[in-house]
Amino acid sequence: MMERPPIKAAETLTAAELSMSWPALENEERVQAYRRLRREEAEDFFQGLSTADQVALLAALSKGERRLWLRLLAPDDVADILLEVSPAEHEELLSLLDEPTRREVSALLAYAEDEAGGLMSPWFARVRPEATVDEAINYLKRQARDHLETVYYGYVLDAEQRLRGVVSLRQLMISPGYRRVSDIMKTDVVSVNEDADQEAVARRFAEHDLVAIPVVDGEGRMKGIVTADDIVDVVEEEATEDIQKLGGMQALDAPYLRTPLFRMLGKRAGWLSALFVGELLTATAMGHYEDEIARAVVLALFVPLIISSGGNSGSQATTLVIRAMALGEIRLGDFFRVSRRELASGLALGGILGTIGFVRVIAWEHLFGAYGRHYVLLGLTVAISLVGVVTWGTLAGALLPFVLRALRFDPASASAPFVATLVDVSGLVIYFSMAELLLRGVLL
Amino acid sequence: MMERPPIKAAETLTAAELSMSWPALENEERVQAYRRLRREEAEDFFQGLSTADQVALLAALSKGERRLWLRLLAPDDVADILLEVSPAEHEELLSLLDEPTRREVSALLAYAEDEAGGLMSPWFARVRPEATVDEAINYLKRQARDHLETVYYGYVLDAEQRLRGVVSLRQLMISPGYRRVSDIMKTDVVSVNEDADQEAVARRFAEHDLVAIPVVDGEGRMKGIVTADDIVDVVEEEATEDIQKLGGMQALDAPYLRTPLFRMLGKRAGWLSALFVGELLTATAMGHYEDEIARAVVLALFVPLIISSGGNSGSQATTLVIRAMALGEIRLGDFFRVSRRELASGLALGGILGTIGFVRVIAWEHLFGAYGRHYVLLGLTVAISLVGVVTWGTLAGALLPFVLRALRFDPASASAPFVATLVDVSGLVIYFSMAELLLRGVLL
Repeated sequence: MMERPPIKAAETLTAAELSMSWPALENEERVQAYRRLRREEAEDFFQGLSTADQVALLAALSKGERRLWLRLLAPDDVADILLEVSPAEHEELLSLLDEPTRREVSALLAYAEDEAGGLMSPWFARVRPEATVDEAINYLKRQARDHLETVYYGYVLDAEQRLRGVVSLRQLMISPGYRRVSDIMKTDVVSVNEDADQEAVARRFAEHDLVAIPVVDGEGRMKGIVTADDIVDVVEEEATEDIQKLGGMQALDAPYLRTPLFRMLGKRAGWLSALFVGELLTATAMGHYEDEIARAVVLALFVPLIISSGGNSGSQATTLVIRAMALGEIRLGDFFRVSRRELASGLALGGILGTIGFVRVIAWEHLFGAYGRHYVLLGLTVAISLVGVVTWGTLAGALLPFVLRALRFDPASASAPFVATLVDVSGLVIYFSMAELLLRGVLL
Repeated sequence: MMERPPIKAAETLTAAELSMSWPALENEERVQAYRRLRREEAEDFFQGLSTADQVALLAALSKGERRLWLRLLAPDDVADILLEVSPAEHEELLSLLDEPTRREVSALLAYAEDEAGGLMSPWFARVRPEATVDEAINYLKRQARDHLETVYYGYVLDAEQRLRGVVSLRQLMISPGYRRVSDIMKTDVVSVNEDADQEAVARRFAEHDLVAIPVVDGEGRMKGIVTADDIVDVVEEEATEDIQKLGGMQALDAPYLRTPLFRMLGKRAGWLSALFVGELLTATAMGHYEDEIARAVVLALFVPLIISSGGNSGSQATTLVIRAMALGEIRLGDFFRVSRRELASGLALGGILGTIGFVRVIAWEHLFGAYGRHYVLLGLTVAISLVGVVTWGTLAGALLPFVLRALRFDPASASAPFVATLVDVSGLVIYFSMAELLLRGVLL
C-alpha cells in the first residue's frame, strides 16, 4: 500500500481513470466506480477486463446486472468465465444466457482451455462462394450489427460447412461489385485444427502475420476463429509457464498476488522436495570421499565453487535450448548440431573458468600462503576439474531437453535447478577423481 | 539433418509447401523455389518471411528483383531490413526505393528498434472529422488500394495532425450515410507515445484487446500505428530476452542456431565469469572454516546439499517475482506484501526440506552407522541450517528484483544463477555458524 497512487474518490472516475487505478482499488470501490460509468463506456470497460476481474465484478453485481453484462460478451469470453467459477455459479450464469448462446457456450466448454477450440469464437462471418462482391459487402454490413468477433474477413463455406476460401473486406472493397466471391477469394487459407495446442496456434500467427485464423475440425468444417488479441494473451501465458518451470516449480496458472499462499506452496514444494532428494545424493557422494577430505581438507574448500560452476553453465545451456525449442527454432533432428555447438561452448567456457580458478589458487598462495607447498598441483586439479565439470554441465543442460522431448515429456521440465542438481553429483565425482589422479602420493 | 522431412525437388513447391520445408532448405534451394512461385503467392510469401530471411533472400536476388520485392514492403518492414544489413547494402537498398518511401523509411530509422516508433507503420487511414459516413467509407475504399497496414480503422485528425478520435469501418458500416464522423467517432482513444518501450505497448494491447494502436508524439500528433501481428512478435521476443537473462546470460537477440558460436560465447562467458568470481568467495568462506572441517569432516558432507537448497529456493522466488514484474502484476509498492508472502513461504519450504534432511541423517545412521554417535545433533544442525538457508534464499530471490528495479537496473538480471551465487556464500556462513553453536564441545 506504500506507493498507492493518489486517486480521486472512486465515484467520479472516467473509464480511462478507472482503468489506471483499477489495481489499487478494493473490490467495493471497483463496483461503485463501475456502476457510475456511462453505459457505452461501461460496455467497453467490461469487455476489456481480465477474466478474473470479470468474475469478481459479476459476483458483486445484482442478478439483473449480471444478465445484462454477461449477454454482452462473446461466447468464448463467457466460456472463460464459466471455467473460473464454482459449479453452482456456473449453473446460475449459464441460466442467464439466451438459448442459442447457451448452446454455443456449452459447445465451447467441451474444448480444453489451451487448445484452438477453447480459444475460438464461434461468431464469424460466413459468405457463399456464388455471392457477388456487392452482396457480400451488404451481408458483412448486416453482420456488423451483431456481436461478430470480426467483420473484416468473410469465410467462404460450402454446403457441408467446409472452409473453401477467405475474402477480406479490403479485397471486396477494391473489387468490382459484379464479380463472384469465388473468383476473388484466397483459397490457400492458413487454418488450425480445433484440437491444436494454443502454442501451435500462436506460432501460426507469428509466422503468417495474421489478424484472425479460422479453426476447422478433422473433416475441414469451419468451427470458429481465433483473433490476434487472444493470441497476445496466449503468448504471454505460455512464456510465463515456461519461465516458472525453468525456475524449478510447477506453473502457477494465475497471477502471483492472486494465488493463495497455500496453493502456491503446493506448486513450489513438490519440485523443491524432489530436487532436495536428488541433492541428497551429494551427501552420499561426499561420504564416499570422506577419507580423501580428512587427509586433505583443502580439497573441501573448492567443492562449492566446482559444483556451482557446473550448475551455472548447465543453467545457461538448458535455458537456451528449451526456449529455442519452444520457439520452434530447434527440433529433435538438430540433436547432433546442438551437441557439437555445446561441446565446443563447454570446452571454451570451462577453459576460461579453469584459467581464472588456476590464477586464483596461485595468487592466494603467494599472497596468503593459503594452500601449502603442492599448490601448483592443487591449482591444476581445480582447473582441470572446472573444464570437465563445465563441459559436462553444458552438455547435460543442452541435451536433457532433447531427451525429455523424445520421451514426450515437456522439455521445460529440464529446469535450471534440475540440471544443477544432476550436475552437482557428477561434478563431485569428476573433481575427486581428478584429485586422486593428480594428488595421489602427494596430498592423498 | 537426421530428421529432415522428405521434400519434393525444390522447383515444384507451392507457397504452402515451401513454407513448410523452408527451415530444411539451403539458401540456394530457397532462392530457386521462391523464383518459381506465382507472382501473387510470392508476394504473400515474401511479406510473411522473418526479417533475417528477407535479408538473405534479397542478397541472393538480382538488383531488379530486389527493387521489386523491396517496394512491396511497408516502410516499417523495410526499416527492419535496413537495420540488419551492412552500411554498403543499406545505401544500395535505400536507393532502390521511391523518394516518398525513402523519406518515410529514414524517419522510422531514427527511432530505437524497441520503442513504439520503431514498431509502427506510418501508413494509416486519416479521416476528417467533418466528413460524412459515406464520404469516409468511400475514402477508406480508395485507401484500400494503397499499402495501408489496416483500412479497418479511420483515424480522425485535426488540422495540426492531432489525434481527435477513431472510427472503425464496422461502426461506419452500421451508421446512416449522412451522419458526420465527429458524431460517431470514439474520442476516448487508447494510444501510445512514440518513445514508449515495446513492452509497454504490448501491455496496452493485452489490456485493451486491440487490433491496432495509434502512436502519437509529445504534442499528440499522430505518427503511425502498431498492429497486433507485430505485437505477437514483440511479446515472444521480450519473453525470450527475460528467459535468457534468467538463465544467467545476456540475451542473444537472434535465434540460437543462427547466432555465430563466437558471439554466443561472448554473451555467455561474461556472466559465467562474473558469477565464478563471486563464487570464489565460497572458497574464502570455506577456508575460514578449515579448522572446523578438519576436526569434523562429516560437516563437509552436507555442504553441497545445504547451499544448493538455498540456490533452488532462491531460483523459484526470483523467477516468480521477475515474471510477475514483467507482466505488471507486481509493482515496487508491493515490496512489503511480497516480503511477507515469501517470508512465510521460505519458512514453510525450509521446514519441509529440514524435516526430510533430519529424517535422512537419522535413517542413514541407523542403516549404515554413517555419522557417529552425535548424529542427532548433526541432524539438528543440518535441519535448522536448511530452514535458515531456504528462508534466506527465498527472501533474497524475491527481494533482489525489487532492489534492482529501485536502482533502475533490469530486474531480470537477478537471474537464478546470480541469486544462487549470492546465497551460496551466506548459506555456508549460516551452516557453519549453526554447527559452531550446536556442536561446540561435542564434535568441534
